[in-house]
Amino acid sequence: MIIVLKPDATEPQLKHIISKVKSLGLKPMISRGMERTIIGVIGEEDLLRVQPLEVYPGVEKVMPVLAPYKLVSREFKPADTVVQVNGLKIGGDRVVVMAGPCAVENFDLLYSIAKSVKKAGADVLRGGAYKPRTSPYSFQGLGEEGLKYLVEVKKRTGLPIITELMDIRDLEIVERHADIIQIGARNMQNFDLLKEVGRAKKPVLLKRGMAASVKDWLLSAEYILQNGNFNVILCERGIRTFETETRFTQDVSAIPVIKSLSHLPVMVDPSHAAGRWGLVPALARAAVAAGADGLLIEVHSKPEEALCDGPQAMLPEKFSKLMQELKRIARAIGREL
Amino acid sequence: MIIVLKPDATEPQLKHIISKVKSLGLKPMISRGMERTIIGVIGEEDLLRVQPLEVYPGVEKVMPVLAPYKLVSREFKPADTVVQVNGLKIGGDRVVVMAGPCAVENFDLLYSIAKSVKKAGADVLRGGAYKPRTSPYSFQGLGEEGLKYLVEVKKRTGLPIITELMDIRDLEIVERHADIIQIGARNMQNFDLLKEVGRAKKPVLLKRGMAASVKDWLLSAEYILQNGNFNVILCERGIRTFETETRFTQDVSAIPVIKSLSHLPVMVDPSHAAGRWGLVPALARAAVAAGADGLLIEVHSKPEEALCDGPQAMLPEKFSKLMQELKRIARAIGREL
Amino acid sequence: MIIVLKPDATEPQLKHIISKVKSLGLKPMISRGMERTIIGVIGEEDLLRVQPLEVYPGVEKVMPVLAPYKLVSREFKPADTVVQVNGLKIGGDRVVVMAGPCAVENFDLLYSIAKSVKKAGADVLRGGAYKPRTSPYSFQGLGEEGLKYLVEVKKRTGLPIITELMDIRDLEIVERHADIIQIGARNMQNFDLLKEVGRAKKPVLLKRGMAASVKDWLLSAEYILQNGNFNVILCERGIRTFETETRFTQDVSAIPVIKSLSHLPVMVDPSHAAGRWGLVPALARAAVAAGADGLLIEVHSKPEEALCDGPQAMLPEKFSKLMQELKRIARAIGREL
Amino acid sequence: MIIVLKPDATEPQLKHIISKVKSLGLKPMISRGMERTIIGVIGEEDLLRVQPLEVYPGVEKVMPVLAPYKLVSREFKPADTVVQVNGLKIGGDRVVVMAGPCAVENFDLLYSIAKSVKKAGADVLRGGAYKPRTSPYSFQGLGEEGLKYLVEVKKRTGLPIITELMDIRDLEIVERHADIIQIGARNMQNFDLLKEVGRAKKPVLLKRGMAASVKDWLLSAEYILQNGNFNVILCERGIRTFETETRFTQDVSAIPVIKSLSHLPVMVDPSHAAGRWGLVPALARAAVAAGADGLLIEVHSKPEEALCDGPQAMLPEKFSKLMQELKRIARAIGREL
Repeated sequence: MIIVLKPDATEPQLKHIISKVKSLGLKPMISRGMERTIIGVIGEEDLLRVQPLEVYPGVEKVMPVLAPYKLVSREFKPADTVVQVNGLKIGGDRVVVMAGPCAVENFDLLYSIAKSVKKAGADVLRGGAYKPRTSPYSFQGLGEEGLKYLVEVKKRTGLPIITELMDIRDLEIVERHADIIQIGARNMQNFDLLKEVGRAKKPVLLKRGMAASVKDWLLSAEYILQNGNFNVILCERGIRTFETETRFTQDVSAIPVIKSLSHLPVMVDPSHAAGRWGLVPALARAAVAAGADGLLIEVHSKPEEALCDGPQAMLPEKFSKLMQELKRIARAIGREL
Repeated sequence: MIIVLKPDATEPQLKHIISKVKSLGLKPMISRGMERTIIGVIGEEDLLRVQPLEVYPGVEKVMPVLAPYKLVSREFKPADTVVQVNGLKIGGDRVVVMAGPCAVENFDLLYSIAKSVKKAGADVLRGGAYKPRTSPYSFQGLGEEGLKYLVEVKKRTGLPIITELMDIRDLEIVERHADIIQIGARNMQNFDLLKEVGRAKKPVLLKRGMAASVKDWLLSAEYILQNGNFNVILCERGIRTFETETRFTQDVSAIPVIKSLSHLPVMVDPSHAAGRWGLVPALARAAVAAGADGLLIEVHSKPEEALCDGPQAMLPEKFSKLMQELKRIARAIGREL
Repeated sequence: MIIVLKPDATEPQLKHIISKVKSLGLKPMISRGMERTIIGVIGEEDLLRVQPLEVYPGVEKVMPVLAPYKLVSREFKPADTVVQVNGLKIGGDRVVVMAGPCAVENFDLLYSIAKSVKKAGADVLRGGAYKPRTSPYSFQGLGEEGLKYLVEVKKRTGLPIITELMDIRDLEIVERHADIIQIGARNMQNFDLLKEVGRAKKPVLLKRGMAASVKDWLLSAEYILQNGNFNVILCERGIRTFETETRFTQDVSAIPVIKSLSHLPVMVDPSHAAGRWGLVPALARAAVAAGADGLLIEVHSKPEEALCDGPQAMLPEKFSKLMQELKRIARAIGREL
Repeated sequence: MIIVLKPDATEPQLKHIISKVKSLGLKPMISRGMERTIIGVIGEEDLLRVQPLEVYPGVEKVMPVLAPYKLVSREFKPADTVVQVNGLKIGGDRVVVMAGPCAVENFDLLYSIAKSVKKAGADVLRGGAYKPRTSPYSFQGLGEEGLKYLVEVKKRTGLPIITELMDIRDLEIVERHADIIQIGARNMQNFDLLKEVGRAKKPVLLKRGMAASVKDWLLSAEYILQNGNFNVILCERGIRTFETETRFTQDVSAIPVIKSLSHLPVMVDPSHAAGRWGLVPALARAAVAAGADGLLIEVHSKPEEALCDGPQAMLPEKFSKLMQELKRIARAIGREL
């Protein structure tokens, strides 16, 4: 931690800060420059991080030296984390694809979509039973009934399933049925929910909040690891910017940034980023080329009748064609898909 | 709803869309322009809004004519909503001030701060018992114990209390003790929580999410009203932008925008927007001058020891001075404070 | 300047960095912490600022201690700068109002608007002869003819005039006619233009770019001061955010932030921020309450026929009413208007 | 154009609007819905676009049906534009790479970098003689001397050159020497400069402004085409968002969006987007995979001594390795590089 003093800071102010630093068992190193005096603090930075040093008289600014997260950091664990789901490895050489409808709407439709995405090469079936919808007038999901359809389709196709958990009260039932528990962008800072899935035994896919910096996102993941669950997959899904041609702006640079800061696998959801199926292939190809460990793609066989996010869902035949392109790109960078 | 067709849309595509519109009991009006054919749809727009019309072949774009929210809109209820809290009116002529520490830390400190903000003219005591913190290593709040301190301080000072609810499982206890239930920015789209406080009997203060458009925010409020609770107070607390001199950017224009679109009262939290106490007076004055119905301000008597957001808390004496300025500004625009 | 080394930085890397620091005549202070070694550098920080230290092997990050601007900083000149325009003081106790049409359209209209804004109490007449327009199909301004109308109206009303300079080739003529040279948001980083107005004798009003951080904005002002012109007025006019209810988001916090970092006067243009005249009064009141030194407001007597930005122009009678409100707010905070 | 009336609009207000529409030779079609009356206008939309219809009494909002740009639109010219530079085709099957230092610093360095990027397979040499720098204290470029070095290196290597034009007064000399004239992000809305390069004979590479929507960007390109120069290449270089891990956020979705809206070629500059060379390979791969027609990459053989943007420059050997990866990705999507 570096404490920069104001140009007019007084000696008593300096002493007051130093005594605070020492009282925490840390060692201050004072450096008097031409224009500023700065105090470098040696020792456990976390002790100081939770102190409101900015309010001490004479302090101009406080600059942390270390990242505020630990367990998720590559410094803590240099080797890549590989999350295992029924034998499937997420975060290894293989790029994983999770596909399916936005929401579970009925059994037949789900089963039909599941068969087609499996045929196209998808590894996991996605589908929401509980749906976070901006408007209360939108379809809110089938709930428990939707989970049952997912389980039955899993039984018939062998595809593991990922589904979203929104409400802590549904944790038990979702954990029982899902292979991967998804935490959506709007709940990325629902800290009580994070703590609870931190105690769950199933892997968690944590989507990035639409206004979350990479640091915020990693701190939310830290909540999960800190509560005991190290099987966390990060998922970029577009951030909110001024651009209106797309629903969100897919932050492709988050992929290499996360790879340098953290050992956790990182996936991308181009469907929610784009908001329009026509843009999904380009964004999916970009994500794989940039080094994403997997993709989450919405596929629907009858988008005209979809109860949720129809405009961003790909038709199965277009998805199948995209999978071929993605395989070639994965190979071009030395991976499989 | 206006449906704009692509320049190369075919007659069968046009017929397909029209038959969809008619099947919903709506009346299409076709207008063939020089460059585009457009279909205006007459009837209940909500029936179409949930249809994924953008995916119909031949459709270029779909433009809704009406706002997606209803109960919160000024069109639905032209007169201002005045929320009553123990005789205090929020949304009327008087500008209301809610002040106190970020978090409840211990009884004596809370009581002492409460007395000083009351003396300065504050109407409501704020203080968090459950704290949403970006980092798991930050102080997470005293929980139920904090609520008890708030209740005891209310008993002694007569100040009604506002406190945040994060976890649905705490609704019953928070509702029992608080006079106003606060939903924080990070839970603005925690839809299950919104539905539950929609069923509560206490007024709800709904903070704007850091990346929420005004439309998103009003739709979140709609969840609460639609579940039966019309006593909703909106609270702007800064949006996330590229600027780093402040923690968030206080969107002062949200005040007149909300006033034109909705009948609900709108308050401002300059402390969280600024992130630094030195900027709070200017932002608080701006909010009152722009027509805010109230302010939520953090005050702490020992910010150097604050367990949460110390840098943005005002000292009681500075808060007292600010209150005098705010009174003069309120009078300058024909209100009281 | 603080240089933070990577956890695995080697001794030769450390030595390499130190030799670089010393070769610039600066003094490195090494502090070996538990998790990082950091190098504090004492001496003229500017010498290091232009060095690409981040690319030195072993460097994790570089944290500057000082702001990158000088002449504009309050540290360089603690007292407020007061810009004088024909006896009018900008940056003193009085809040200054500059009003008029977006563009000069014809003489009669300009003269009529000028008379009405003068009567309402405006201090300066605004009007664009050269117009930066997003679309090439929009009205581009009358050019030199517009300048002549401005000069004639100034002669008749006594109001000083402010007008925008877009093209370096027009500097001579604009400087000759205008009392204040306006640099628009889209030219805030047109550095050649900044250098030239830095050599001009007339005061310059520098609008903030729509994506400019406060730091970028101050550095653009620094270009002007560094070339010799210290009569610079800053003008916040809304930044680009995700919100679409307003054209831009008026960053009211920029006012106190600038006041703390710089000695230059700061004004606000609520008309361009809002994009709709109905929001201008609330934004103008907020700006004055927050401490702005002046306002730039668009007024038009026939907005239905305006060739530029009609929707954001106030009618003269509404502007006159607003001026009364603003006077009361100015007095409430101890200023005049 | 669709004009939506307020729910309480009166008949005289409706008639007033209709008479305006008719006076422009357009045909209004009135549609009275349950909640709103809307007026669809048939005829040349541009006639209405420049009218401030929003200020007409009774108007709630105005929704344009067509895009505001023409010559740049794919509707105007369905086939891809291929810009030819000394036999090199930009916008065709081949993905083009332009590489070199940020700034021209001296002849030997430039020549050495040029030889290495040519060897690695680059098609064009980049290098700035005139440099737009945020701070006046940064290196401002060699100016005309830099142009001479570029020309000499071109002579020796055969590589065409691209260099930035900042100041209209330098147009003649830049046009004479450069093969492609670059307009930087900060000048994207310097409309006088756009008009002038619209009259130039050399191709223009137009970078996207850091806060420019795709629509703004295409309108800036429209300025160039409208003045006669159809050889325009668009270049995405990162937009400004709240994320601070990267200097800007590379908007990879802009590539397919531009491809659908416009016939112009679109390139990407991952170096300026990232701000750190370590992120450039991932961003470059993503851009090619998403369908970019080319890349602009900074390469420097001695980044420790670079006078400009050293941290984002790749070493020649790393660039060479990246080129191999990019070739494989280009082939994976059916292109060459």
